Formats: sequence, C-alpha cells, structure tokens
Amino acid sequence: MKGTMLYGARDVRYEDRPDPIIVDPTDAIIKLSATCVCGSDLWPYRGIDPTVEPRAMGHEYVGIVEEVGKDVKHIQKGQFVVGSFFASDNTCEICRSGYQTACVQRQPGAPTGAQAQYARIALADGTLVPTPALPDADLVPSLLSASDVFGTGWFAADAAAVGPGKTVAVVGDGGVGLCGVLAAKQMGAERIIVMSRHPERQKLALEFGATDIVSERGDEGVAKIKELTRGLGAHSTIEAVGTQESMMQAIQSTRAGGHVGFVGVLHDVTIQGLPFFFSHVHLHGGPAPVRRYLPQMMELILNGKINPGKVFDLTLPLSEVAEGYRAMDERRAIKTLLQP
Amino acid sequence: MKGTMLYGARDVRYEDRPDPIIVDPTDAIIKLSATCVCGSDLWPYRGIDPTVEPRAMGHEYVGIVEEVGKDVKHIQKGQFVVGSFFASDNTCEICRSGYQTACVQRQPGAPTGAQAQYARIALADGTLVPTPALPDADLVPSLLSASDVFGTGWFAADAAAVGPGKTVAVVGDGGVGLCGVLAAKQMGAERIIVMSRHPERQKLALEFGATDIVSERGDEGVAKIKELTRGLGAHSTIEAVGTQESMMQAIQSTRAGGHVGFVGVLHDVTIQGLPFFFSHVHLHGGPAPVRRYLPQMMELILNGKINPGKVFDLTLPLSEVAEGYRAMDERRAIKTLLQP
Repeated sequence: MKGTMLYGARDVRYEDRPDPIIVDPTDAIIKLSATCVCGSDLWPYRGIDPTVEPRAMGHEYVGIVEEVGKDVKHIQKGQFVVGSFFASDNTCEICRSGYQTACVQRQPGAPTGAQAQYARIALADGTLVPTPALPDADLVPSLLSASDVFGTGWFAADAAAVGPGKTVAVVGDGGVGLCGVLAAKQMGAERIIVMSRHPERQKLALEFGATDIVSERGDEGVAKIKELTRGLGAHSTIEAVGTQESMMQAIQSTRAGGHVGFVGVLHDVTIQGLPFFFSHVHLHGGPAPVRRYLPQMMELILNGKINPGKVFDLTLPLSEVAEGYRAMDERRAIKTLLQP
Repeated sequence: MKGTMLYGARDVRYEDRPDPIIVDPTDAIIKLSATCVCGSDLWPYRGIDPTVEPRAMGHEYVGIVEEVGKDVKHIQKGQFVVGSFFASDNTCEICRSGYQTACVQRQPGAPTGAQAQYARIALADGTLVPTPALPDADLVPSLLSASDVFGTGWFAADAAAVGPGKTVAVVGDGGVGLCGVLAAKQMGAERIIVMSRHPERQKLALEFGATDIVSERGDEGVAKIKELTRGLGAHSTIEAVGTQESMMQAIQSTRAGGHVGFVGVLHDVTIQGLPFFFSHVHLHGGPAPVRRYLPQMMELILNGKINPGKVFDLTLPLSEVAEGYRAMDERRAIKTLLQP
C-alpha cells in the first residue's frame, strides 16, 4: 500500500509501505475512507518534536473494516467505523469512568499510521464504533472529524463544564477551537466568545455558534473578555493551543469558580502555583477521550444536526499529503482532509 | 486591648493595641471567645514570607458581637458568630456561585487581627454566621475550627469531588489534612488513605475516619497509593501542604479522571504542563470559600455529629500566643487554640 512517513522537519513523503496485517487477535484492518492532518502533527513537522527515526503519520480515521482478528467479537468486516487516536478496551475501570485515553491497555489507535490506504487498528472492539449503515459520502468529513478534532473540541467544552446559560471563551481558532465552539453551542452555552484574528476562521466560528469575536491577545485579550463579562471573566474557557501564553490567557479569562478545559498539548508550559491558587479556577484536560463521546457525536452527525466537517477547508488526494501539511503549517488551511 | 503582632521571623509579641472601632458602616466589632494559630501563619513566622513591617496576626475567630455599623441589618449585638478569614458580601454573583473568597468586595475578614481580645469584622452581614443561641463552651473549639481549618479541609474534600464509594488520599497530616479526613468521611468516602509519619496525627486521622495510613513519601508514597488502589490511584486527593513535592505527590497519586483538591498555599510550586496534560486529573483549589460551608458545618457541630475541634491539641491563654506559635513550628502541637 501507500502511506505517509515523516523523515524530519518538513520532510513528509507519500511512499510504498508494507500492507498492515493482524498482529494481535484483537486487531482489525480498515481501508481508509478519509483521513486528515492534525494540528498536533505540526509539532514534529516543524521539528519542535524532533524526529529521531522516520515515522508513520496520521491518527484520525474512518474506513471500512477489511479483516478482524480472531478475538474481535463485535466489529465485523464491511462495517463503516470511526475510531479514536488512542486504542482502548472500553471495559476497564478507567474506560468505564470515561477516560479511554488512559485505558489500562492504552496504545496508539492506528499504530501503522492513518494517513495511508490501510491501517491496523488495535483493540478493535473497544476502539471502533460502527455506523448502522454505510453513510452518505457527504457525511464522511464530519464523521472523520469526530475521530479527533471534533471529539477533542467536545471534550474541551465538557472539561470546561459548558452548559446552559454559561458564557464560554475559546482560546485558539484552529480546528479544535472551532469545534469547541460547535460543541459549546450544542451544550447550550448562552454566549461564546472566540479569540481570533483570521476573518475566515471568525466566519466559521460565527457559523458554528460564536456570539462574539475578540481579536486582542495576551493581557489585552483578557481585559476584553473581562469587559464582556461585567469584570468577572468567562464561566468556561476552552484552551485549544497549548502554549504558555494561551494557557495563561485561558486561566486569566476565567472567573473564580469557573472551569478551564485544556486540550492543546502543553509544550514548555509551566503553571505557577501562587497565581493559580488565587485564580480559583478548575483546570482539567489532556488528550481527549474521544471514545466516550463517539456515539453521541455520531448520532448528531448522522441525523444531520451538526456539520463539524466544515473545519476541513482543504481537500486533497492522499498522494498530495505533503501539500496538506504545508497548507496547515502556513495557515493557508484550517485543516486538510485527505482522500485515499 | 491586647493583641498579637509579628515583628519578624519568630518574633511574636502579645501587646497593647488600639481598640478596634467601626470604620465602615458594614463593620461589626466582636469580642473573641476563642482564636487560634493557622498553619499559614507559620510562613511569615518562619520568615519564608518576609515581614516588612509589624503586622497584626490571626484570621480565625468566633466571638460575641459587641457593636455593629449602621448598615448592618442582620447581625446583632450579643450574637455568637463564626466568620471566615475573607470578608464577603455574600450577595454578588461570585459569592452566589459559592466562591466568597473571590467576592467582588473581598477583603480580609478580621483586618485588625483575630489573635486579640477584640476584632473588627468587615462586611459583617455577609461574613458572619450567628448560632441560634449561645453555644455550650465545649462546642466552641469545633465552631472555631469551622472558621478556617475545618472549613478548608471541607473545601479541599469538595474540590477533590469526594463522595460515596470514593477512595480518597490525603497528602498532609496537619490540621487541614486531618479536617479533610473528617470532611471526606462525612461526604461518604469509602476509603480514606492518609499520608503521615506522626503517631499522634495518625491516631486522630483514624478517629476522624481514615482507613489506611501510608508513611512513605515522594515516589514511594505514590507507589504505595497505587498499590492500595489496584494500580489506578485515588479517585480524590486532598493536597494540604503546598510544596512542590506534596503537589506532585497529590497529582501522581490520583487516577486519570480523578480530582485533586488543593488548599496548601502553593509556595514556589510550578506545575509542568506535559506530565499534567497526561495525568488527566482535575485540579481545583485555592483559599477555601469557608462561608459557603459554614451553615452546614455549624449545624453538624451544634448537633454533636462531628467534633473537628479535636485538631486543637494545645490550649493556651491568648497571652501565651508566642508559645502557641513555637509549639506548632516545632511540630509539638497540631494546632493551638488561644483563649482571650
């Protein structure tokens, strides 16, 4: 098959790769219907996370089951499935509490890489959720988004305790931040303030349910959020970037007793104890346990209630994956969908 | 009157002080029935928080109302009252959400110092809670504890989402940690693991409801907690120290999806982003909004259901306040009650 490898900073290659095979009896092999480039893929792409040896890329996927291992009981050949970037048994105590990303059997969901024609999926019964029937092609982008970007935005909103009547601030206007807006709207938020300077992203934010746009950043951004919330700050803040500045902006934009849900991978971030102590915010986040939310998200998508697939503003053949990375790196695209 | 001043590291003096007077029309003056030394008083006492100029000490108090300002509507002369270390109007949006420690009018509760014969209390109507009648003398220590140490332990347990069936770890065997044990027991925790090396404190922890004692610290302490929880960690962890080691111990002792409630004032603590990201814990804390819990705690105390006053293992006349500090500094006493 063909698949995507990263050899070093900005060196993405679409090349011949071994066909994935069943390794563990709980594995499945899927034929990718669609895959995409993640904001987190840009960390190694940019060389911030160094690439020690060439690695298979991609962890967001939807596809058709080609084969299952002998211990797979529920997932069947021919099903259209959505899965998460972490494989989970979905039966352990941690999974049952909703933290499938910390499953006692946790492992990468698509260890052979999902930016490929085929992928091996670990712990198939726990990891994959099938659709009742083959979905229409126009639903595929949204179903794909559920596997990470939308699922991550949803978790961020949930971790930020978004609910009816709440004022929500969103730090980050990438795919995850925008999906956080859509999730917050679904959860009944009254007001959704998005921090963004990009007209195209602002437009999609408003379409997804944002009520206010703040273009200021840092202390000025915080001051603006305070001004919009009678000096108190947001009830719930979604942090979808993962830098020191964005994390501080999120904490400071939140009122005492409010909640910050953070899903940006915290690179070189340190939280100072004393100001955090007095901020009185709740802080929760990490890698999104997408699996917890998949059934609910997929139902909303299959019923046409939401269309998170709109975050894909660039669609390319999988063979042009390198251009997909470039477009996101240069912020020409919010998120690139790849068609195998 | 006589009151307590700190002049510098380990220089506590009981001396003549001006009688407190009504400054704002929302003030009250109380005659102290009892007061005490707080673990947080030891930071300036030890010189870790430097004393730039002499300061009036004490912020935990119960007493009889002597006088009220003209805008005080509910608190009346002659009432026995319990109050918190932060004054709050108890009517603003932040107070109504339960974060009276971040009241929009927040100010010190007893600005003239509570380790004294009399004290001025700010925002009396919002800050003070009266008992229905004058309480028996034997209930006074427990009512005093509600004003900070027990209220702080209670908040820590609440911030750690303690509830029925939960396994709780408690980092810190000082007054707050021990009160956290009692609070966790009241909230229905199934198992309460206390980290302690002091036989006297272990004894009180067991009396308050602890089920297990762990004497190991640091990584060994974490390993022991994991061993006691089938490798998963506690559901809820109370952090009642405020050092880098204790905070890391608390986070690492908690399972993915679990909650850390921290109330130790975070001195020189930094939380590293990446390990925190992957820990998947909820983190919440800060100065305890004791006022939120006062009615509930006072009812339990007045009905004889709980006796948190047992954390006071040394009682001295207020005039011997300096010895009260010394005993706590040298860990000869868990907590010193002072009788004016």
